[in-house]
Amino acid sequence: MFLVRNILSVVVVFISVQLASAQTGFDPLPYVNPFIGTSNYGATNPGAIAPRGMASVSPFNVAGRIDLNPLEKDSQWLSNPYVHENQFLTGFSHVNMSGVGCPELGVIITMPTTGELETDHIEYGTTYSEETAEAGYYSAKLDKYNVKAEATASTRAGVSRYSFPAGKSNVLLNLGLGLTNEQGAMVHVVGPDEIEGMRMVGSFCYNNAEAAYPVYFVAKFSKPADDFGVWKTPYKYEGLESQWMGYNGKTRIKKGFTREVVGDSIGAYMTYDFKEPQEVEVQIGVSYVSIENARENLAKEVGDSTFEEVLAETKNAWKKKLQVAEVEGGTNDEKTIFYTALYHTQIHPNTLNDINGEYPEIATGKIGKTEGTRYTTFSLWDTYRNYHQLMSLLYPEEQLNMVRSMLEMYDENGWLPKWELNSTETFTMVGDPAAVVLADTYLRGLTDFDVEKAYEAMLKSALDTTNNPLRPGLKEYINNGYLGVDGEVEGPVSTTQEYNIADYAIAQLAKELGKKKDYKQFLKRSMSYKKLYNPETKFIQPKNSDGSWFAEFDPLAGANFAHNPGYIEGNAWQYLFMVPHDVNGLKKLMGGNNQFEARLDELFEKDQFDMANEPDFAYGYLYNFIPGKEYKASEKIHELIDTYWQNLPGGIPGNDDTGTMSAWIIYSMMGIYPITPAEPVYTFVTPTFDKIKLHLNKDFYENGELIIENNTVSKKEIEVQIDGSSIKRPLLNLTKDNFPKKIKFL
Amino acid sequence: MFLVRNILSVVVVFISVQLASAQTGFDPLPYVNPFIGTSNYGATNPGAIAPRGMASVSPFNVAGRIDLNPLEKDSQWLSNPYVHENQFLTGFSHVNMSGVGCPELGVIITMPTTGELETDHIEYGTTYSEETAEAGYYSAKLDKYNVKAEATASTRAGVSRYSFPAGKSNVLLNLGLGLTNEQGAMVHVVGPDEIEGMRMVGSFCYNNAEAAYPVYFVAKFSKPADDFGVWKTPYKYEGLESQWMGYNGKTRIKKGFTREVVGDSIGAYMTYDFKEPQEVEVQIGVSYVSIENARENLAKEVGDSTFEEVLAETKNAWKKKLQVAEVEGGTNDEKTIFYTALYHTQIHPNTLNDINGEYPEIATGKIGKTEGTRYTTFSLWDTYRNYHQLMSLLYPEEQLNMVRSMLEMYDENGWLPKWELNSTETFTMVGDPAAVVLADTYLRGLTDFDVEKAYEAMLKSALDTTNNPLRPGLKEYINNGYLGVDGEVEGPVSTTQEYNIADYAIAQLAKELGKKKDYKQFLKRSMSYKKLYNPETKFIQPKNSDGSWFAEFDPLAGANFAHNPGYIEGNAWQYLFMVPHDVNGLKKLMGGNNQFEARLDELFEKDQFDMANEPDFAYGYLYNFIPGKEYKASEKIHELIDTYWQNLPGGIPGNDDTGTMSAWIIYSMMGIYPITPAEPVYTFVTPTFDKIKLHLNKDFYENGELIIENNTVSKKEIEVQIDGSSIKRPLLNLTKDNFPKKIKFL
Repeated sequence: MFLVRNILSVVVVFISVQLASAQTGFDPLPYVNPFIGTSNYGATNPGAIAPRGMASVSPFNVAGRIDLNPLEKDSQWLSNPYVHENQFLTGFSHVNMSGVGCPELGVIITMPTTGELETDHIEYGTTYSEETAEAGYYSAKLDKYNVKAEATASTRAGVSRYSFPAGKSNVLLNLGLGLTNEQGAMVHVVGPDEIEGMRMVGSFCYNNAEAAYPVYFVAKFSKPADDFGVWKTPYKYEGLESQWMGYNGKTRIKKGFTREVVGDSIGAYMTYDFKEPQEVEVQIGVSYVSIENARENLAKEVGDSTFEEVLAETKNAWKKKLQVAEVEGGTNDEKTIFYTALYHTQIHPNTLNDINGEYPEIATGKIGKTEGTRYTTFSLWDTYRNYHQLMSLLYPEEQLNMVRSMLEMYDENGWLPKWELNSTETFTMVGDPAAVVLADTYLRGLTDFDVEKAYEAMLKSALDTTNNPLRPGLKEYINNGYLGVDGEVEGPVSTTQEYNIADYAIAQLAKELGKKKDYKQFLKRSMSYKKLYNPETKFIQPKNSDGSWFAEFDPLAGANFAHNPGYIEGNAWQYLFMVPHDVNGLKKLMGGNNQFEARLDELFEKDQFDMANEPDFAYGYLYNFIPGKEYKASEKIHELIDTYWQNLPGGIPGNDDTGTMSAWIIYSMMGIYPITPAEPVYTFVTPTFDKIKLHLNKDFYENGELIIENNTVSKKEIEVQIDGSSIKRPLLNLTKDNFPKKIKFL
Repeated sequence: MFLVRNILSVVVVFISVQLASAQTGFDPLPYVNPFIGTSNYGATNPGAIAPRGMASVSPFNVAGRIDLNPLEKDSQWLSNPYVHENQFLTGFSHVNMSGVGCPELGVIITMPTTGELETDHIEYGTTYSEETAEAGYYSAKLDKYNVKAEATASTRAGVSRYSFPAGKSNVLLNLGLGLTNEQGAMVHVVGPDEIEGMRMVGSFCYNNAEAAYPVYFVAKFSKPADDFGVWKTPYKYEGLESQWMGYNGKTRIKKGFTREVVGDSIGAYMTYDFKEPQEVEVQIGVSYVSIENARENLAKEVGDSTFEEVLAETKNAWKKKLQVAEVEGGTNDEKTIFYTALYHTQIHPNTLNDINGEYPEIATGKIGKTEGTRYTTFSLWDTYRNYHQLMSLLYPEEQLNMVRSMLEMYDENGWLPKWELNSTETFTMVGDPAAVVLADTYLRGLTDFDVEKAYEAMLKSALDTTNNPLRPGLKEYINNGYLGVDGEVEGPVSTTQEYNIADYAIAQLAKELGKKKDYKQFLKRSMSYKKLYNPETKFIQPKNSDGSWFAEFDPLAGANFAHNPGYIEGNAWQYLFMVPHDVNGLKKLMGGNNQFEARLDELFEKDQFDMANEPDFAYGYLYNFIPGKEYKASEKIHELIDTYWQNLPGGIPGNDDTGTMSAWIIYSMMGIYPITPAEPVYTFVTPTFDKIKLHLNKDFYENGELIIENNTVSKKEIEVQIDGSSIKRPLLNLTKDNFPKKIKFL
């Protein structure tokens, strides 16, 4: 339904060379600032990680001492192991999430200290200074101990280097402390240079605590300890018996203990007595399968390598990854915003499988084995909107692996993922986003996956009305076209809109696969949002199941995540335009272009637009759907970029959402945006940079590159030329088969 | 110093045949009543156990519902998994202690239930009826479920048979519930017929919590479950974050979960849906080394055997064990008291090593390997007084293995044990009892152990004044001859007396080994109790370190375990005669026979004698030291037997003390008693039975048997004939070299 121009492309046969053309001399690493997003609830962390790493080493500064840590993890809703404005560090966590909205992982915490052994993080924690972070590297000086702590990581191992002064020193491995709400750990000191164990994690977003699961580790120390042991702090017993318990609630130091210990508040320590300043390197391999696999991951990825060697390898991996885009022009800050965003898109989805291919299957608890990469952390409610589109463009081989991982989950579990984390379905957020990702990937021309299975899986979640975990209320949705506010489903308006978008994606794939009946059925289903459009209020708003409007409707309710009948994480304003598959239909409902424009203006004027959340974050681009008003899109997008994105810790407007916000800024700074999920349609605004060269995978994009050239004089009025031909409207369907060499902005 | 008569004995050379002569047709099993000692704080349990078993299956009825369980484990000091007067059963624990004074073990609890799954023991617990117990067998009907539960055990495995009605049934494996104060467990459902895991235990008698350690298990089910899972109840979070935790403090059912789970309150379940009544057999192998060893223990001891087959083998083992003694005469109750006591002496010390010989070394945490049996549970403060003497007589090969285990501990740890449990030193009670056991064993003629090492170990604990864990205050004791009440050592009077007894034992062994200087030194040390004898009060009483008497002395203080400066578990009366190595010296201090007799009379008359505790429990025999008043010994001992010992749950006066009280009643009913530790001296009172034939191990006792014949007419006045010769005084030194064939009472 959008203006489409076919682009002729020369078909050249290549032998598969992964990103062969990407290896230029350009070094993007100086433009990565891992501190961006570590404040303002961006929820990223400046820790060291390899691209899509299972392990990472993040400074952990969110526990205790609210005087020094204003954003203390238990004092509010806080979802990250590190906050830039906090000052009290209690260690370095070795499995971490980036940019999510709920606390999880942030465990297997090491901490170097000096002097007498102290195992209580409130006592051993310290302020820090001289903090630096790069892609794959983090360092800080721990003030209390005069210890320099440095960290890097391979895919499945964190590697740290602690530079101790002379004297008594300790390395603590705290398994009690953590960001997750799950408790329980096991630790076993294997010898003076090795500790193994596990930690329970899970219950992400306070959901599905039944599925909480173990993460295993093996820690190796470059120098054998002079002394070692385990500590355990038991819960305080309140009963009569406590009068005989001299040890009640007190920390026990199990010196030299080499048996297994389990408990909620436990840890192990290595103690040294250095005659002169010394470095200790600590390598920690992790696995979601077993201690043996953690040991193998560590041996094969790190082995005898030094800290410097691991660091060099990881930096090189990042360099290759980020060289996919080469930008010219723009300020240093703009480049840093851009490359840091790209960096942030390469953290999740992350690797789940061990180096031997093993991983825990979803839900079944069986150990599966993959030949490629099994990805995890699918925040699909976020990522279906733009993230996977960007991956299809820049890293198509990874996007295909992600799709294959999603289909493996269907094989294992009988269902596609919704918000999958480490092979648990966390049931976070609403809708049926997997269908969109699968259809979108296929329709962008990445077809090397079992599309019939994908289609079957999509149909199952769209049609199975018995114990369907993905689409609660499906029967009512099918019967009535919407979910009633008097029903069981939270956020019935939002959910109806999400189901519409998923159904539209199914329709698009059905059309492509020649399934005409399905196409018609799902296209029809995808338009049912109209039943919730109230021409009187001009809102998409909650209805009772009997068809009457919900009486207590307030379009302003629900801001700041307050509970709001009808909507999830938003209000009626924020969901008003969330019909990306039928913008013209919505426009018509509203009375045409002028009314649509006025309503969009009103949204921004009334400050009801939320840059920090997904439902409305592409609304600025909707001006491109109003002939003659396209300039407002460029104007608005640049205003948003300037307002919300900075080369500063607070430089992401809220949770990065596993790279979804980052995908938004990457696209927006490039001046192109995939406006409709499951349709390869791009829309355009003035780019930020003068020139962007994308080095594309020739297996998927035959040209091997896309050049975006920005020759505009005004940021408002733009003309877009695709391979030399001007397009009439700033909306274009681009698949890998009609993919241009150059997009020129005039 | 006692009258000794040498008995000529015919030396016959035998090929080693262990208890060859013991295999008579006599069946002692009907005279075992495992309910004796399960009330009145006897602290035995009626569970199924094999002789000296590592595993046992005890009904567990001490948790919750104080309305049904008046002796609830957390409502008072309670040290047993089962109390006869309690009525609310919450399962069957698979590692248990018998007759001890502190709560420990009582974990790995199974419970058969029917209907919907319920994992809270307060909810799933039930009353029970039709309770029976025999050596190696226990059964009861669980009222709420109409399930018959039966149990037996091999050395390292508990085997249960649950007879379920038709319908939905469950077998729970509760790893949260337990008698121990230690917390923490791991569980892993291997499949529908197998569960493995571990439980932390330790901190016996509220001591040495730092040494808490794991016990591992593998549970196999004769029928694969239709459904299975794990449960976990997390601690309730109190902070702000709890407002988002829908699961806060709530039990989670992890259906079908096959990953490892750790936590304090966890368990696993197997669920069945039976069309008709069915039996499920549950075999649980345990190990203190590893899950693998628990699995091997189970496979090799039980394997494919049925419940009936294991039961038959264990009953046969008990029969052979108890056939060591054959009694004639006496009532059925008297026989039952006797054989049940003998049964109770065969529970601890128990087997620690796995079937492959592996066991955790003491303190080091290393895994050692034994060729024979590594014993554990050395309650030496109790057992040095009579228990090991009885073992040397009836089961000398076991006694030697126990001595070897003690010496292994010295090898591993550098110290002899004091109160050893599962390779942890619990530091319970006072004194240095290991020295007594080692010397006593050797001096009774059981010399097949490394006596030089034993002697070295004894000297170390007697002489090493630096960080000596066995003899606190040793320096002061050596310097002053006693411990001052103003010092650091608890119970300085009791401790001084205990050190005296240990020193006497060292002196006796030194004499035997020809170490004359040591003999003199330690003999002198052993008499220092005299410094604490106050001729004015006629008590052994606390002194300050400057030599002055402690001013607030009260000879009656300290009854009922109340804290009492000077004494441990007793008062000045109860410790007044605890000089078993120098009764004549004490007599002299008191002013001679008459004054000694009067003081002894006064003790009993004033009700200051405590039958339930070791320091004074042999005082009745001291009348034998007063010429002409020997009749009072027989009179008193029979009065005590009649008063305190019954064929009833309350039939043991207080804790059985790992068989020490049982050894007292066995000896006393036989009419012989080993009155002086580390001297093979017996004293005599009228036996209870007409005839007692002891089938002795010919490797150690060449006659192969000892017959005690009771032809007395009065219970008071007795004449003792040893192999036909009357002895003048009822005190006799008997080693294996001069061991009689017959002791005849006339």
